[in-house]
Amino acid sequence: MIDVSSLAHADAATVREAARTRRWTGPTAGLAGGFAQANLIAVPRVRAYDFLLFAVRNPKPLPLLDVTDAGDAVPRRAAPTADLRTDLPRYWVFERGRRVAEVEDATPYWRDDLVAFLTGCSFTFEWALLAAGISLRHVECGTNVAMYRTAHPCAEAGVFRGPLVVSMRPIPQALVSVAVQTSGRYWGAHGAPVHIGDPAALGIADLSRPDYGDPPVIAPGETPVFWACGVTAQAAVAATAPDYAITHAPGHMFITDMRDATLALT
Amino acid sequence: MIDVSSLAHADAATVREAARTRRWTGPTAGLAGGFAQANLIAVPRVRAYDFLLFAVRNPKPLPLLDVTDAGDAVPRRAAPTADLRTDLPRYWVFERGRRVAEVEDATPYWRDDLVAFLTGCSFTFEWALLAAGISLRHVECGTNVAMYRTAHPCAEAGVFRGPLVVSMRPIPQALVSVAVQTSGRYWGAHGAPVHIGDPAALGIADLSRPDYGDPPVIAPGETPVFWACGVTAQAAVAATAPDYAITHAPGHMFITDMRDATLALT
Repeated sequence: MIDVSSLAHADAATVREAARTRRWTGPTAGLAGGFAQANLIAVPRVRAYDFLLFAVRNPKPLPLLDVTDAGDAVPRRAAPTADLRTDLPRYWVFERGRRVAEVEDATPYWRDDLVAFLTGCSFTFEWALLAAGISLRHVECGTNVAMYRTAHPCAEAGVFRGPLVVSMRPIPQALVSVAVQTSGRYWGAHGAPVHIGDPAALGIADLSRPDYGDPPVIAPGETPVFWACGVTAQAAVAATAPDYAITHAPGHMFITDMRDATLALT
Repeated sequence: MIDVSSLAHADAATVREAARTRRWTGPTAGLAGGFAQANLIAVPRVRAYDFLLFAVRNPKPLPLLDVTDAGDAVPRRAAPTADLRTDLPRYWVFERGRRVAEVEDATPYWRDDLVAFLTGCSFTFEWALLAAGISLRHVECGTNVAMYRTAHPCAEAGVFRGPLVVSMRPIPQALVSVAVQTSGRYWGAHGAPVHIGDPAALGIADLSRPDYGDPPVIAPGETPVFWACGVTAQAAVAATAPDYAITHAPGHMFITDMRDATLALT
């Protein structure tokens, strides 16, 4: 495995090439600083309309950065020299909503009828939060952010349905407004928080038991702040059980050629 | 016809009811102040994936506010008590890309296989420009804004293709930055301008001869500023010639229950 420090300030194409040649098979947090990372979900063409509509109807968790044509593994808008079958470090493969494989190369699993969707990722606004002087507990601790399935159903579209999934970051009370304004610029990366303060309002019974990621540490004087999360797509795959789907493995994102700042432009 | 002054400050449902009962069959500019107006385009389900993808790939001219299910004429997100077959003052009906009818009630033309798309409209940012102290020549003159087909092709999606259409507003040089910042907040209403200054850069040969709307008057010291325009959808229908389509008649928009300000929120 290549030294991570050499990838932190590499450009997007360099990190994708390291993934393609399997010199990098780990998580992508902190790599290719300044380039927007994306969630991947690919579904058969026969389900693509339903998923596209599901994303359009739920833009907070699923802001669309690119959609391929069926049979084309090149994301022509987000990274026209990339190949989605090989350029992520790690993939999950689903059959009827059940995960059947975790692989470093999706080529043997790719199908000509797959349509791939790339959606924005919270890494984009996390860099902006850090730049605005907000430290992030899970980054400091080297853990994964805590994520929760909420009681709030997504807007349904065709066969796709499922709960809104949120990520939670504890923010010092004096900086909550800064966090809202900073993340709120990034329509392409979940935008402003969906809720501030009361986990019960989202149907979250116990913050110490996240559904995905690691248990959080909330210090005195900190407010839990909740953002819509791209894992909503994985929850929808689990709830909907489409015949087939390929996604990134959590944390092992696709690195686009799009600069973080462009996800704040309208 | 009802007195326009009684509709200017009416709520969205009241204006829709006036259109439904044909007490109002005229343009909607200036009606239901504060409520976002929307472009309508409905296409058969067999073409809906292509059009949805066309809109997603071209979010500046076609920011999606709502998409119905096939056979459902209720825009459940944008106005859950409305009926898209009756609640606009005037419709255009297209067969194979050619306009075959202009009607005040689309019910006889609606089909069970139609999927309706509502996209954001420049009226939303025009109110914001006025509030920011930028007067609008076409509003002062009581004319329609000037619109142009550009040499810039939209990103294609399935059968849909066509040129980017832009609207142009002359802005005093000292206020161009204000116009960019003000409109740029509204992702749901075309956002910031696509070009400032040189019509030739967009392939526009003669500003005095717009492709849609009325010829503009540009005063000394004003800069032509170009925004992406929802008429891009009509140009795509003309270029693509889908079997069938129903749209609003230009200027006769659908009035949503969404407040203008919500089109600036992420």
